Amino acid sequence: MNEKELIQTLFLPLASGFEGSLGLMDDAAVINNLNDQKIVVSKDILVSGIHFFEDEHPAAIAKKCLRVNLSDIAAMGAKPICYLLGLCLPKKDNVSWVTAFCEGLKAEQDFYNCALAGGDLVSSTGPVSISITIFGSLAENNILLRSNAQAGDDVWVSGTIGDAGVALMLLTDSVKLKSDFPKRDRDYLEARLRSPTPRLTLGEKLLSFASSACDVSDGLLSDLSNICAASGLGASISSRLIPISSEVKRVIKEVETLSIMDLISAGDDYELIFTANVKHSEHILDISKKFDFGLTKIGKMTQELSIVLDGECVKQKEVKMGYGHF
Amino acid sequence: MNEKELIQTLFLPLASGFEGSLGLMDDAAVINNLNDQKIVVSKDILVSGIHFFEDEHPAAIAKKCLRVNLSDIAAMGAKPICYLLGLCLPKKDNVSWVTAFCEGLKAEQDFYNCALAGGDLVSSTGPVSISITIFGSLAENNILLRSNAQAGDDVWVSGTIGDAGVALMLLTDSVKLKSDFPKRDRDYLEARLRSPTPRLTLGEKLLSFASSACDVSDGLLSDLSNICAASGLGASISSRLIPISSEVKRVIKEVETLSIMDLISAGDDYELIFTANVKHSEHILDISKKFDFGLTKIGKMTQELSIVLDGECVKQKEVKMGYGHF
Repeated sequence: MNEKELIQTLFLPLASGFEGSLGLMDDAAVINNLNDQKIVVSKDILVSGIHFFEDEHPAAIAKKCLRVNLSDIAAMGAKPICYLLGLCLPKKDNVSWVTAFCEGLKAEQDFYNCALAGGDLVSSTGPVSISITIFGSLAENNILLRSNAQAGDDVWVSGTIGDAGVALMLLTDSVKLKSDFPKRDRDYLEARLRSPTPRLTLGEKLLSFASSACDVSDGLLSDLSNICAASGLGASISSRLIPISSEVKRVIKEVETLSIMDLISAGDDYELIFTANVKHSEHILDISKKFDFGLTKIGKMTQELSIVLDGECVKQKEVKMGYGHF
Repeated sequence: MNEKELIQTLFLPLASGFEGSLGLMDDAAVINNLNDQKIVVSKDILVSGIHFFEDEHPAAIAKKCLRVNLSDIAAMGAKPICYLLGLCLPKKDNVSWVTAFCEGLKAEQDFYNCALAGGDLVSSTGPVSISITIFGSLAENNILLRSNAQAGDDVWVSGTIGDAGVALMLLTDSVKLKSDFPKRDRDYLEARLRSPTPRLTLGEKLLSFASSACDVSDGLLSDLSNICAASGLGASISSRLIPISSEVKRVIKEVETLSIMDLISAGDDYELIFTANVKHSEHILDISKKFDFGLTKIGKMTQELSIVLDGECVKQKEVKMGYGHF
């Protein structure tokens, strides 16, 4: 299939739910204003061999791409509107790949109510790369920023930390387990890496009381340091408070070299870190009960600019602060 | 420099004019609604070795990337607001490249009043690729689509056609000239390839009377066929009416194999093709006088679905209809 045929056959069905896509026939798409709400936009690129394995199933890649982008707007408290897709593909033999990729997108966009609005499809001599621009709207014309944390605010985190990182260590053999390690546990960890859940509902709820938020994409320490830098503050957190899944606990039990530092330095969890005044604690714990994941207080924002873990200053150079592209 | 340092040092200055960029500190950027206007968005990816030469100067690449994207919103009649930048770069030795690239962006965005709002910076094992998402607003809450052309409408084109295509043929040696071919003419053609001018002011003017529009990115024939397909019509055009620069005329004089078909099949001119009711002819010629490029009537939209050139049906398979990525 040529470019036009690929678009007509495989991409047009993804745009059918969104009028502003103009049937993918124009130079651009249209985002109608929604009662004068703010529009939030984010762009993430995922490259084969770096953000996902080259032999990963295309539908799984599509799933992760869309979810990672949705996580960015979840961190702003926004609701998905639509997305633009930029796809760089090798020149040949890509019809079956694109077909499966589009099937993956379809399932995800239906689930998250977020249709394709447009994009670009080009050939490349390099690896597959997928660039998504995602659009969200802010229901209350409010916004969650990284920069509004206050000294004394509690630091909270959703779900569990380190699952995706440990899954990656297992898949790349940098951590090895005995053969009798439960397959169910391994599957759980891999699912956390491959299908992160964007915390959209939580993000929307945070709008009314959180002072800042950020998603855990590069690693808890790295992303918390982003909130600190943006707010001109530091943070003090406690390793025993970091929420860890029972699956990761079982891995730690077997692999003594694996430390809490590895978990909070690893990326890809796509949980939300947020800060809130201490007066909201009870309300947050109430909200927590409505989700199938927990909300856990792990520390406090401080006037001192550094990040302190268990009373000791974390020296940035000693820690792998998330994935460094350069 | 690592990722954060690159962003702080080189990209942040590009975002300083745009409040919604949130200082490039957040997961997403904010597009405030502008008096309930429609927002137009477009995304184009440019890959090294395909859309530009690998050894092209980074500032020139930046220039072309932004202009190509601006051309997309020009074709919709929109005014630029801001852009998101997705940059895939080799892992090493990229600081001087990115520095020059950002200098190029800065000059262009200042000229077109269109600041950086956010984006993503990732490493890749493949060639440099640049994905821009551009945002525009529609001044009159009107929009130029490809799909509204009417049978009997005149087909118009701005500027001259084939300059960029001929420049590419010269640069790739697929067309060769005698050594005494004027350097000035060669420079003019190369400039048309390297620094296309998005027809933004024209696009805005077209909003009030044109029935459809499209930019000439893939080649006049290919892009006209997009208008035809979207409008469910055909077109009949005349080769002697196609506006050709004196520089291209001089090349044709020397290279007999070069035909009008080559010119209307070549891409990258970034002129606008538009259709308008015949009653607007005089008005269009009046507007034309205000620009430093012409507006030329080249044919008519027809009920018959095919594209007819000089009375003969253009068989799509016989013509290279623009660049085929796949």
